[in-house]
Order: sequence, then C-alpha cells, then structure tokens
Amino acid sequence: MNKYLKTDEWKIIEEGFNPSNHRASESIFSIGNGNMGQRANFEEKYSGSTLQGSYIAGVYYPDKTRVGWWKNGYPEYYAKVLNAANWIGLHISFDGEELDLAKCTTKGFIRELNMQHGTLKRSFTAVLPSGKEIKADIIRLVSMVDKEVGVIKYKVTPLNFSGKMKVTPFIDGDVKNEDSNYNEKFWDEVNKTVSGTSGFVTLETRKTAFHVCTGMDYKIFSNGKALELKPETSTKTKYIESTVEFQVKQMDEIAIEKYAVNLSSENHPKESLLHNAGNVLKKAVEKGFDRILQEHINVWAKKWEDSDIVIEGDPAAQQGIRFNIFQLHQTYTGEDPRLNIGPKGFTGEKYGGSTYWDTEAYCLSFFMNTAGHQVARNLLIYRYNHLAKAIENGEKLGYTNGAALYPMVTMNGEECHNEWEITFEEIHRNGAIAFAIYNYIRHTNDKDYLTEFGLEVLVAIARFWKQRVNFSTEKNKYVMLGVTGPNEYENNVNNNWYTNFIACWCMEYATEAIDYVKNSNSAKYRELVKKMKFDELYETRDWKNIIDNMYYPEDKNLGIFLQQDGYMDKEQILVKDLDPKIRPINQHWSWDRILRSCFIKQADVLQGLYFFEHLFDDKTIKRNFEFYEARTVHESSLSPCVHSILASKTGNVEKAYELYLRTSRLDLDDYNKEVAEGLHITSMAGTWMSLVEGFGGMRIINGDLHINPLIPDNWKSFSFHIRFRGRLIYVTSSQSEVKISLIRGEKLNLFIHNKPCSVELSKDTIIKIQKL
Amino acid sequence: MNKYLKTDEWKIIEEGFNPSNHRASESIFSIGNGNMGQRANFEEKYSGSTLQGSYIAGVYYPDKTRVGWWKNGYPEYYAKVLNAANWIGLHISFDGEELDLAKCTTKGFIRELNMQHGTLKRSFTAVLPSGKEIKADIIRLVSMVDKEVGVIKYKVTPLNFSGKMKVTPFIDGDVKNEDSNYNEKFWDEVNKTVSGTSGFVTLETRKTAFHVCTGMDYKIFSNGKALELKPETSTKTKYIESTVEFQVKQMDEIAIEKYAVNLSSENHPKESLLHNAGNVLKKAVEKGFDRILQEHINVWAKKWEDSDIVIEGDPAAQQGIRFNIFQLHQTYTGEDPRLNIGPKGFTGEKYGGSTYWDTEAYCLSFFMNTAGHQVARNLLIYRYNHLAKAIENGEKLGYTNGAALYPMVTMNGEECHNEWEITFEEIHRNGAIAFAIYNYIRHTNDKDYLTEFGLEVLVAIARFWKQRVNFSTEKNKYVMLGVTGPNEYENNVNNNWYTNFIACWCMEYATEAIDYVKNSNSAKYRELVKKMKFDELYETRDWKNIIDNMYYPEDKNLGIFLQQDGYMDKEQILVKDLDPKIRPINQHWSWDRILRSCFIKQADVLQGLYFFEHLFDDKTIKRNFEFYEARTVHESSLSPCVHSILASKTGNVEKAYELYLRTSRLDLDDYNKEVAEGLHITSMAGTWMSLVEGFGGMRIINGDLHINPLIPDNWKSFSFHIRFRGRLIYVTSSQSEVKISLIRGEKLNLFIHNKPCSVELSKDTIIKIQKL
Repeated sequence: MNKYLKTDEWKIIEEGFNPSNHRASESIFSIGNGNMGQRANFEEKYSGSTLQGSYIAGVYYPDKTRVGWWKNGYPEYYAKVLNAANWIGLHISFDGEELDLAKCTTKGFIRELNMQHGTLKRSFTAVLPSGKEIKADIIRLVSMVDKEVGVIKYKVTPLNFSGKMKVTPFIDGDVKNEDSNYNEKFWDEVNKTVSGTSGFVTLETRKTAFHVCTGMDYKIFSNGKALELKPETSTKTKYIESTVEFQVKQMDEIAIEKYAVNLSSENHPKESLLHNAGNVLKKAVEKGFDRILQEHINVWAKKWEDSDIVIEGDPAAQQGIRFNIFQLHQTYTGEDPRLNIGPKGFTGEKYGGSTYWDTEAYCLSFFMNTAGHQVARNLLIYRYNHLAKAIENGEKLGYTNGAALYPMVTMNGEECHNEWEITFEEIHRNGAIAFAIYNYIRHTNDKDYLTEFGLEVLVAIARFWKQRVNFSTEKNKYVMLGVTGPNEYENNVNNNWYTNFIACWCMEYATEAIDYVKNSNSAKYRELVKKMKFDELYETRDWKNIIDNMYYPEDKNLGIFLQQDGYMDKEQILVKDLDPKIRPINQHWSWDRILRSCFIKQADVLQGLYFFEHLFDDKTIKRNFEFYEARTVHESSLSPCVHSILASKTGNVEKAYELYLRTSRLDLDDYNKEVAEGLHITSMAGTWMSLVEGFGGMRIINGDLHINPLIPDNWKSFSFHIRFRGRLIYVTSSQSEVKISLIRGEKLNLFIHNKPCSVELSKDTIIKIQKL
Repeated sequence: MNKYLKTDEWKIIEEGFNPSNHRASESIFSIGNGNMGQRANFEEKYSGSTLQGSYIAGVYYPDKTRVGWWKNGYPEYYAKVLNAANWIGLHISFDGEELDLAKCTTKGFIRELNMQHGTLKRSFTAVLPSGKEIKADIIRLVSMVDKEVGVIKYKVTPLNFSGKMKVTPFIDGDVKNEDSNYNEKFWDEVNKTVSGTSGFVTLETRKTAFHVCTGMDYKIFSNGKALELKPETSTKTKYIESTVEFQVKQMDEIAIEKYAVNLSSENHPKESLLHNAGNVLKKAVEKGFDRILQEHINVWAKKWEDSDIVIEGDPAAQQGIRFNIFQLHQTYTGEDPRLNIGPKGFTGEKYGGSTYWDTEAYCLSFFMNTAGHQVARNLLIYRYNHLAKAIENGEKLGYTNGAALYPMVTMNGEECHNEWEITFEEIHRNGAIAFAIYNYIRHTNDKDYLTEFGLEVLVAIARFWKQRVNFSTEKNKYVMLGVTGPNEYENNVNNNWYTNFIACWCMEYATEAIDYVKNSNSAKYRELVKKMKFDELYETRDWKNIIDNMYYPEDKNLGIFLQQDGYMDKEQILVKDLDPKIRPINQHWSWDRILRSCFIKQADVLQGLYFFEHLFDDKTIKRNFEFYEARTVHESSLSPCVHSILASKTGNVEKAYELYLRTSRLDLDDYNKEVAEGLHITSMAGTWMSLVEGFGGMRIINGDLHINPLIPDNWKSFSFHIRFRGRLIYVTSSQSEVKISLIRGEKLNLFIHNKPCSVELSKDTIIKIQKL
C-alpha cells in the first residue's frame, strides 16, 4: 500500500512533489480518449525517473519473443503497445537556465486529475538553482470531441525577476519502450517538417508499418495578449522543434497554448496522413483552447450523466468508483470494433496493451450498462473479426474442422503469449468469449447477433472443445487433461472444474444458437452451414454425448466442486492462518511452492458459479464460496470483484465491502506496489460489477431485470446507472429504501427483491426495506 | 537419419567433401583430451558454414538468462561452455591466392578420425580458382600426455606450379558463441605478444574472470629440411599472427608443424600464466611433433587395452561402440574432481556444457568399469563439493534444516536452468545422485566413501524429500505433488511413481548409511551429527513414517506401476500405430498435444525398474517393460539404452538389438538430424551400459559379480572389459560359450548365468551355452 493522494469525490489530488511517487502518479493521472492516451509525464524537461508514455490506439509492434526454450506452437512475437512520439514536450528556460523539477525546489505543488472535466492540472512554484522563482499553472487534455487532438495550456509567471524567456515546443519521435525485449527502437522516420510555430513528424513502426503523424502548433500570450512570434526551428532524427525567445517582466503571466495532433494510418491513407494532420491541426488552432476544453467537458458531463455511481457517506469508496469509471471511459469508447481494452489501457507498457479474456469476462458488463449496446456489440464483433485467425491458431496446435482457439493475448487475432502453461492450456478464454455472446443477448435481447455473427463463433468454439476432451476408459467419462484455469497458481491440471463446465456449457449454447438461427432465418442458416461445412446431425450429437458424459471433480462430503483432480491431496491451510509477512506469496515463495500449495490466485470454481449462478442453488454457491474464499489470496487484480459479488449474493456484506474496497482502490492506494507500471484498467470493470451486480444485486433472469440491493452499514446510500434494453435506469439504494428511476426509454416491468414492479419516466418506484 | 560415413572398425571416414555435411562432421570428428577439446574445424581459412568450437575444461560464462516471464526462484544466468581462442588457425596462400575449400574444387577428400590413435587426419587435392593444384595431408591431435598441448602437422605440395607460398599461423581470441543470449562476446583481452614464430594471447572471461593463455609456435620444413624463417608479425584485438613467405617449387613437400598450448587459471596462478605457457610451449616444441604423436598413441593403446569392446560379425555395431567409448574418454579422464561431463562434451555449445543427472545415471557405470574407481569417486566428490550450494538452492526455494536440492544444470553448483517445470520440479535428479553413491559402493566396496563424503550428501537429500512430500488426508498417505519425472513429455504431475519411489529409497539408504557410519566409526559419526545438526531419532523416524505410508500409483488390473496419477485417463494409443510421418512427435506436434498424449519421451517407471531391478520380480519387470516400451517414442537420447537393457533382461533380444543400434549409432547415423550441434556424449555411456549390462548381463548382487550374456543372432561374438574391485576382467560371449579372463588382479569368484565359478590370471573360465 502507498496512500499519498487526497480523498475527494471528483478529483485525484497529489499535494507536494515527491519524485519517488512520480512514476506512480504518471500512471494514476493518465488521460486518454479511447483513440490516444498519455501518461502524466511533465511537459517541461524532467531529468528525474520517469516512464514516458504516449499511446495511439491500435498501433503496435511485434517484438521478437524472448524464451528460454522454444516449444512447438509458440508465437514468434509478442505484440506491444507502443510508446509513440512525445507531443506534450515544451522546454522552458530563463536566461539560459532550464526549468526542470528534478533540479528545482518546489512550493505548493499540486497535481490534480479532474474526473468530472477530464482534465489534468498541475500548479507549482519552482525555485530554480539560480534562485529565480516562477509560478506555473498547467492544464492538459486529450479531446473527447476531436479524438486526434490534445491541447495544453501552460501558464508561467516569473515571480522575482525579469529576463529572457525561451520556449521550445517540440515533437520527439526518437523514443523507445522500456519493455523492448532486445533494447531496440520500434519507430523509423518517414518524414518531418517544421516551419514557424508548427511542425510534423511522421513515423513508421518497424515490421507492422503503421504510420503515425504527430503535429504541433502553438501560441504564446503575455498577460492575455498574443505575442508576435519569430521562431527559430531545427530538426534531429525523428525530432522537430520551434524556439522563441522574448523578454519577460516580473509578474508577467506568459501562457503557452500547445496544440497537438496524432493521426494514424489506421484512420487515414498513408499518403494523405501529413496533409490531413495539417487540416486537423489547423481546425484545432482555429477552435482555440477554451472551446476545445468546453466541448470536452460537455462530453464528459454526458458520460457522467449516464454512468455515474454515487456513494453517500464514504468519500474514499466514492472516489474509488469514479476513478474506475473515469479510466474505463478514457480507455475505450467503443466506436471502433478494431479496438479493444488492454489490461493497462493507455497508462503503461505492461502486458503489451493487448486483448485478454478480461474484455469478455469483466469489461463487457460495464460498457453494456454504461455506454450502450452498440459499444458492447463492437466488443463482440472484434472477436468475430478474429475468428479466421483463431481457427488458424487452432490448426497450428493440431485441431481440425474449423475449431477455433482464441488467443490468450492478442493485438490482431494472432496469439502473442509464450508460456506453454498459458498459451496452450489456459483455454477457458474460449469459454468466456462464448459466454460474452450469451451475456450480451441476455442483456440486450439482440438475438439477431447470433444470426449475423454469433453462431459462427459459437460453433467454432464448440468444435474446439469437442476435440479438446478425450474419453477416459478408466473413468468411463469424458475428461479434459492438461489445463490451466483462471487460477494461474495451478498449471497443467486435469479436469479443471471451471473449464470442464464452461466447455459443456459452450456446446450446449452453440446447440441452442443453432436452433434459434435455424428457426428464425432458415436461409441464412443454410448459408452458414455451407460456409462452416457444418454437419449438424453428427456434430451436435457428439457435443451432446460429451455434455451427457462429462466428468466433474467434486468432494461429496464437503458438497463442493473441486478445482481440479487431486486438489484435496494438497495440504489444506487457510489464508487467515498465513503469516502476513509472507504475503503476497508471489513475492515471497518460489513458484513451485505456490503451485503445490492450496492457495488460489483467483478462484475459478467461483468464477464459474458467478457466470452460471442461475444453474446452481444458493446453498451450493454458499458452500463453495466459503470453501474457496478461505483459500484465495487475491493476487490477481481480477479476483476480489467476483468474490465481492458472491459475498453479496450469499448475504455476507462485511466480506463484500472488504473485497470491494480492495478492488476499487487497488491503484489509488497501490495495494500491490506496482501502479508505477500502469493502472489495472480491466479489473476496474470488475469493480463496477461488484457494485452494481454485487451490492446492487442486478441480474437479468428470463429476460427480466432484477435488482436486489444490499448496502454496507457505513454507507448512507449508493446509486448507479444501468442501461437495459433501450432504457437508462437509475437505482438508488439507501438503508431504508430502494428507488428506481427511469431516465430514458419505455416503461419497464422489473423485480426488486424478487417482487414484481414497474417504472416509468418521471414515475419512480420506491420499495421500503425492512431491516432485521 | 543421414548416413554418409564409411563403416570401419577403428576409424570414422568421410570421403568426398560435401559442405552441407561439414557442421555434422565438425562434431563427429571432434578431438579432446579431458582438458581441452576441439571441433573438427579446418586449420586453413574456410568461408563456408562452420561452427567454430575450441573448449577449455571448467571455463564458462554465466550468460544472462532469457525468459518470457520471470518466476520466483529462477537463476539469474545460464552457465555456458565457451568457445575459446582459435589455436588451430593457419592461413595459406600461393601467389596471393588463399586456400579456402569453400572456393576450391577438391579431389580425393578424406577426413578420418583414427580412434585407435586419437588423431584427426585430412587429405585432399584442391584446385584453386586460378587452376593451381595442391595436395594436402593434415594430422592433428590434442595430447593425452601433455594435456595443455595440441599439435598439427600440415603438409602441402604444389602439384602443377611453382611460386610464392605464404603461411600465417595465428591465434584468434576474438571469437563468440553462437548461442550467446544477447549476441555478446564473452572474452576480454588481458595481454598478447608475438615475436618471430611464437606468440600468445591471454583472455579473460567476462563476469567469471577465468584467464586462458593460448600460445603457438611453428616450424616449416621443405622436403624434410627445416626452413630458416624470417617471419613478419602483427596483432589485432585479441589476435596475433606470424607470417612467412617463401618460394616453393612444383612437387616440393612443405610441412608446417604448429604447436599450441592452452593454459587456464584453473590450473595456474593468473600472474604466471603467460610465463608457464611459454615453458609448456617450449617443451612441446623441443619434444617435437613425432614424439608427441607417439606418446599420445601409447596412452590411447593403454586405454583401449583396458576398455575396448569387440563385436565380431557386425562392423557397424563395432564402429558404433568404439566411437562411443572413444568420445567418452576424450571428454572426461577423471583426474580432476572439479570437472564433469557435459551432454555435448567438447563438441558443441548446446546445453551449456554443464553437468546434468546424466553423469550419475549414465556416465558413472562407464567410468567405474573402464577408467577405474578413483575416476568414479571423483565424479561423486564433484557433487560433494557442491553440497553447500545445493543446500543454498534448497533454501532459495523454501526448504530448511540443511535440505539439499541439487541443480538440474550446473557448472559450479548453482542452478542454471530456468523452466519452472524442470528447474523446480524435475527433482528426481536428487535421487540419481544418491543412487550413484550406492552404485559406486556396490561396485567398489569402498564403504569408507560414506564416512568421508557420502553420508552428508545422503542426509541432505533425505531431508529434502522429507519436506517435499505432504500428507494427504484424502488418501491417508504421503503424496508428492507438482513433479516432472525423467519423462519430460509430462510436466507438473502428481505422484510420479519413479520420483516417489526413489525418494523413499533415498531415505532408506540414508538410514542404512547412518547405521554403517555409526557402527564403523562412531567418533566421525558424532562429528558429522554435530556438523549437520542432525537429530537422528526424530529425523529417521519421520523418514520411516513416510517410507511406510507412501502412496504409489498403480493399475492393479494390468499389474503395472502408473507413471503418475491420472495416466490411465489418457487416450491409450501405441507407438506402432502412429503415422511415421508425424515422428518424431516433438517436431510435428504442439507442446500441449505432446503433454496430453500418452507418449513417453523416456519411460521413468522403467528407469526405476532399471535402477532397482533387485527389488522387483521378473514378471513385474516384464509387464511394465511391455506396457511402457509400447508407448515410448525414445525422443530423448537417454531413452533407448535403458530400454535395451530391460529388453535383454526380459529375454527379448531382437528388441534389445534394435534399441542398441539406435543408441550406439545415434550420432554417426544422425538419427535426430541434430549432430551438427554436437555429439550426445552422456548417452554414449548408456550405449556402453546397454552392451555390458544389457547383452553382457553384468550385475553386482550382494557383492558378487554376475554375468548373464545374451547375444544377438547376427553377432559371432562380443567381448568387453570391466573393472571390479581391483580386477580387470575380459568377458567374451559367443553363440556357444562365455569366456571370462582375468587380466589383472586377484582370483575372483563370480556367477555366470547364475552358476558360481571363479577366474584367475591366465586361467580362463569357459561356460558352454546350450542354445534352445
């Protein structure tokens, strides 16, 4: 834990500059707009420790894989999100002395992320080594309206001197990734140009040949009056700058407005990139900083209007949930089905910024409920578009007949991961991708998705499972060998309950989907059968045979499902009996000791019971929850949220709250001492779920919305937005009542605490709660 | 398979120069003397594809580990055998045109490894691009007498011209390893000097700071008469050369004798290295090529006298076994307990040249029987000297109380391997190290080894096993979870039969060793108890409790031991039913498919039955052999030999012969298409075992030597040497009789085909065989 930020309901605030927290703050104060993102690096020179990060959505580099011993089937490369050209840069000096906070003392340093407005602010008074004092106020944003535009207003006032001020806005594309496997740079220069105040650098990624043109222009005002600038310009490799020098008087307020654009060849023809960048930049400059800011704030206001969660009586919890929602909206806005949600979003390099099963298992619910159905649909289509690659990946591993194994980590549909126990064995990801289709349709009732896209994915996944199991004559059942479940503290196990279960569920759901498409659109069905070379009779019969004869490990005495074969052979110790000094165990124990222990990183039986709650009775869920929660160390950021939901489900509000705090403030309080590497973006969606599905008890059952709130004792109330089948609904739950308001859409019949009721526009429904 | 070598009983012969076989030949024709070794690289320039390899025993570089994802407990580095300075180099040109076989046509090219004499010869007629023809005869050796000396006699005759000949002997230390993880060079220059015909380069390894001084001198003769040389010298980084130029007439025979030395700081103080190298070189030059050659041949004659194996009626089998014996003697001579036997010896870079369990499980028998007890003892002492590091390694992984986990791969006692499923889990290696002590004492009767060294190792190993098992309340037995057995086509399994068995055996043997030392030398025992902080009562009681309550997986219906829990859940297919097109499976199947299949790389139940044959009845051995052999693909070089021995044991001579050929000619016929990387040195010891213990049926039972030969139908006879408790014995087995001769030592009572008999000097024992 490292708690150095102030609690505030709408802002993240850092007071005083502590260089040892700087990398962490660079992550936490990141800003983004779904199309680009930027760590909270300083604009002016900073010679201290920093992780520079400017990221452009969809632009990646296939870095040559680093392995100890190659295994057949490993991918050749690991796709990496790229640190792109630095567009924020702005060197400032006075009488030749450069402003560099690593060399100054600072007073009144405040860094502030305004989540309501989507802006990053910074203000400080700096004492330069010469004794010169300056005051600075900086505000930066990447526009939610003009998605290729970022702007900075950098105000400086000399407090105790007059003299010569030099300002050098620049673009520096000669950057690298800290996580480069072989210490290589990933960008080559295509062209660069600088003239007067404006300039452009176009770079090309090696191997992938993406082009990104980064442009800038700037204005300088002295006490509100625009200066006539006569800049000098110069260039270096992948670098341009424009420098102006002028006299400043003590207490003059100098305001530099820097306008920057990042255009990528994902959205523009390469040959027009520079030209288009010029146009976008010109429009931004014409629009001006203040209007760009105001339009940006307006979009954020709308986002909050539709997705805010309010917690009364617990400012830390309030700040936590808003931070999670804010960062999710900054990462993915859902207009572009080619994009997805990297585990660190635009806040760091780790995990390559690629797509994991996190998207389907955690993020889908959030976007479906807060950003609308089309956004969620785009997340599904992303995988549909990768289907051919997933089938190719299956073929590479020896599967036939159009069986798809979706990759564990991907940027373009190809597998990037290269640890055999994960790459080849953590195959439950295929199940989450099928489940997401089910979950989306359950939520939206958009059954046509099956016809248009879903069925092909479901059949390809079912075909995979059919080939992945084998019949054990010993057990007289189908078994699944050599699997790693979501609990990565077990590798290469046999009959992982979660994977066996989701495999059969996938085959069952694929069968249902076939029936639906066949009955609702038989022409299209025939077309798909032909396209997939699908032999309905034989293939579905095989699936049914497996479903009917699947083996599931369980402990009948304890009445629980067993994580995998042999789990009860382990020494059974509870987490509460572990010496706190050896936690987290992944920082204190050797890998083999972790593997052999009964301790669980994230409980995969519980993941299954969360997904398929409707198929199990409450007592079974409770028994399994209590057994596994006692053995789970939650060393995956994705773990506490699911446990929190199940704790709520089983009525254990104290446990639910403990786990909720852990997930919602994971990064703000730096529970795992790793926030400097970037934020846990995808687990933030889990936080949202633990509030809405956990405390809020939101479920869709047989097409109906159910709300079953449970409120922690220290909360006065909590309120959340959800979208459901064309409606925007606002739920407020206090200690004494549950109130449902319909904000948009038609009248809705729903269930509150299992009682049928309805809600209409301007006609709230209130249910009083009888506390025991 | 790639068969391009001629069959000859004493020689390996390559006729005609085929560059595509050159790297393979560089491996096969390697020469070495235990202290240094050299691939069969050409002396003169060769611009074609080559793997340069000159290796100095004990000198290594800790190359920074390359991993995808770091796991707690991984070592920081992988120790690599180093390609050291090129001492054979000798550039030759005529009228400015350089001799380079990649640019010449050759006639009558013959490369010949004379195993009887330990020499590498080459002769050819080369036509240079200009049309000049020269004839060359080259002989090279690294001396078995002067272990730091290598010599070359390079004879050249211009066949169709007279002109100017230039000869440039050199030493080039600016070399690298092909397997360098980060493409770095591993050597720095310490000093260099060259004057007249002689010069020296001293290099230091990075990080490990070994010094190696390589020196050279040379003489040139024209038609047998020494030339007066006026060399010019020059140097570059880590490089010296000496050049002479002179007139040659058509049909002159020019003979260049190059003398080289390699002295390492392992054997000399660094400060005297250059000085000592000068002395060693001077003595070699004084001794002269012919005497060095003769002395070398004499040592080889003695080695063959004591260790030759003769097979009558099967020249390919004869060549195979001699090649194996020859390469083993070249790799390790056993004088220096700091040295060991790398899987590739001095013939390539792969596997880092470090020590594996191969030494104890395969090599010990060979050296014990052919090179004498002290050599075998030195192999054991090597591990004793690493005991503190093995305990440290155990501590790193969480073990306490002086528990030792020996490394999977090591150079100096530290673990070098970094795949978790091997590093942390392939712990059976600990068992092989204990078994080697037992095997050594069984063979030599040197029980004092226990008192002096063995007990400490055995107790530390037993302590490891005690902590590595856990009690399963489910099974009411001790279990061992998360293990990889010798069959590396299974990873992270539970209750690997072999490992469970050897673990208990180790605890039992440690207990016996305690009793022996306590009873035979109680003072020393008390001293050891104190040193080891050994609590005899409690610790041995714990061991006994585990031994008595260990769980062993088995299939009672089939009457076999199960490789591990769940093995029978796999789809049971036999190797004979595999499509030959997909073999070897490790080149055709993805890793996960291999893991999930029932196919076995090398059968570890059989490894256990081989080690502990005396504890099982013949029927059990036969049932297990037949079950596992049918599922074993032998994709480890260490596999066929053990199966061959068990095939002999169970009377299946055809199978034994098939597997024997596979192991004995593995490299000569390049079964696995990988000989270019180096030879399979350690598995060569397995070949020896499959002959002596397999066909020869040699066993030590209750201190008695047993010989139970079985002879393949196509062999007239086979004969082998063994050493047994101070005696050298020669066994000849034909289709009709077994003859035992005592070559050295006292009268011996022994058993032939279970019948007691005896043998004395000059009094052979002959037993007639009744063929059915």
